[in-house]
Amino acid sequence: MHWCRFRDGDGATYGVVEGDTVRAMSGSPFDGGEPGDETRPLAGVKLLIPCVPPTFYAAGANYRAHLAWAAQALGGSGAAPPRADIGYRAVNSLNAHDEAIVIPRDATGPVQVEGELAAVIGRTAKGLTRENALDCVLGYTIGNDVSERTWQRGDRTLWRAKNTDTFNPMGPWVTPGLDPEALTVITRINGDEASRYSTGDAIYSLVDFLVETTKYVTLYAGDVMWLGCDGATPDIVSGDVVEIEIPGIGTLRNPVEGE
Amino acid sequence: MHWCRFRDGDGATYGVVEGDTVRAMSGSPFDGGEPGDETRPLAGVKLLIPCVPPTFYAAGANYRAHLAWAAQALGGSGAAPPRADIGYRAVNSLNAHDEAIVIPRDATGPVQVEGELAAVIGRTAKGLTRENALDCVLGYTIGNDVSERTWQRGDRTLWRAKNTDTFNPMGPWVTPGLDPEALTVITRINGDEASRYSTGDAIYSLVDFLVETTKYVTLYAGDVMWLGCDGATPDIVSGDVVEIEIPGIGTLRNPVEGE
Repeated sequence: MHWCRFRDGDGATYGVVEGDTVRAMSGSPFDGGEPGDETRPLAGVKLLIPCVPPTFYAAGANYRAHLAWAAQALGGSGAAPPRADIGYRAVNSLNAHDEAIVIPRDATGPVQVEGELAAVIGRTAKGLTRENALDCVLGYTIGNDVSERTWQRGDRTLWRAKNTDTFNPMGPWVTPGLDPEALTVITRINGDEASRYSTGDAIYSLVDFLVETTKYVTLYAGDVMWLGCDGATPDIVSGDVVEIEIPGIGTLRNPVEGE
Repeated sequence: MHWCRFRDGDGATYGVVEGDTVRAMSGSPFDGGEPGDETRPLAGVKLLIPCVPPTFYAAGANYRAHLAWAAQALGGSGAAPPRADIGYRAVNSLNAHDEAIVIPRDATGPVQVEGELAAVIGRTAKGLTRENALDCVLGYTIGNDVSERTWQRGDRTLWRAKNTDTFNPMGPWVTPGLDPEALTVITRINGDEASRYSTGDAIYSLVDFLVETTKYVTLYAGDVMWLGCDGATPDIVSGDVVEIEIPGIGTLRNPVEGE
């Protein structure tokens, strides 16, 4: 089962994806909404980001081969973080399936993609334990943490390197009931496989992040937690089409444009 | 004129503060809401944070005396940032006027306060110029960027040092029509003045941040941009009451508790 969020007039409606069809829901998956009688062809709906998170958490450095790559490409020690310290991205940068990633005119690049598993939080949660942590997760979606590496090296924060408008595609929908440590993340540029890794290789698991974060921070329904990526990260340029596939969820696809 | 947001049953209502009275508004100041006929005593309403920002921007290092203090207390060069690079805080950490700042049980401290001017964005804005930048600002409020310095030194990001639940009081209300470069920010601990500085001493002005940020990022109605603080930052411990006053706006007051 997957649930999605799609444009409906000036607003947004949640739906359940059934093959090539979307069944509209009453309410949202966060408040017990249920599938109704109305269906539409999936190809005929404009998918939106599956939720608008109150806070957009991102693990950042969380895989050894990515840390080794980043140490060489961006500087830094390459050492694993000593604990599951979460980071943030900004909501302005979220971008829906099929929408263009727009590279700013003055970006000198390289601009690269980071395909990631993302957890969608379903309810208010604080003080989670290893045993109950995953109970607050409503499902999983796909994120693409697009990064401008010159800005990432030179700026004081990641504000434009990783949070420029359109730089964080998320979707196409949310899939409940998966094991977040047993998924494969595949990146394709113009149809050619450019990266593949297993979420089981993460340094810190989703459970680690949920337990550590909720010692201090309350999570809310709709918050998302992106879990980092492994290995080197493919370049993109204007005209490319990038796809991030996680079998069991689906494929997040975005064309790339120059500003 | 000040506008505020207060608890009304299970929801929130916007109001205009008129001396000791609050006049309820139809709608919100972001969508042309107008003051109505109903008034309530200000002392009888529970003030909420004045808006829930889609993105919570924070300048961080933006005053020379604060940078010099931070270089000594936290490490770093003390050099001014070479451009107006914005940073972020997390929405979970926002806290209303009169609500407690709660210091986590395992915080070794010191825990310190940073009183700041905060701009509230009134409408969607991208590509602002120096001439029109301030047109997107609906008004000004007060922020207190509470910081746990041991975590700030040791963690990979500022996630708990500056984003623990309750660590970002904001309020008490929003005041339009001020000059953001001509305000004074006064911090009192238990009634005693502990810090005073002028926003005119900022390295980068609000205009600088708005112009630089909106080269890459769209601002939305309700976004807030906190502008940093000057000088050393007073310690707080459980039992203290901290007040941040900006004459022309008002006073943001919060008691401090241990978890």
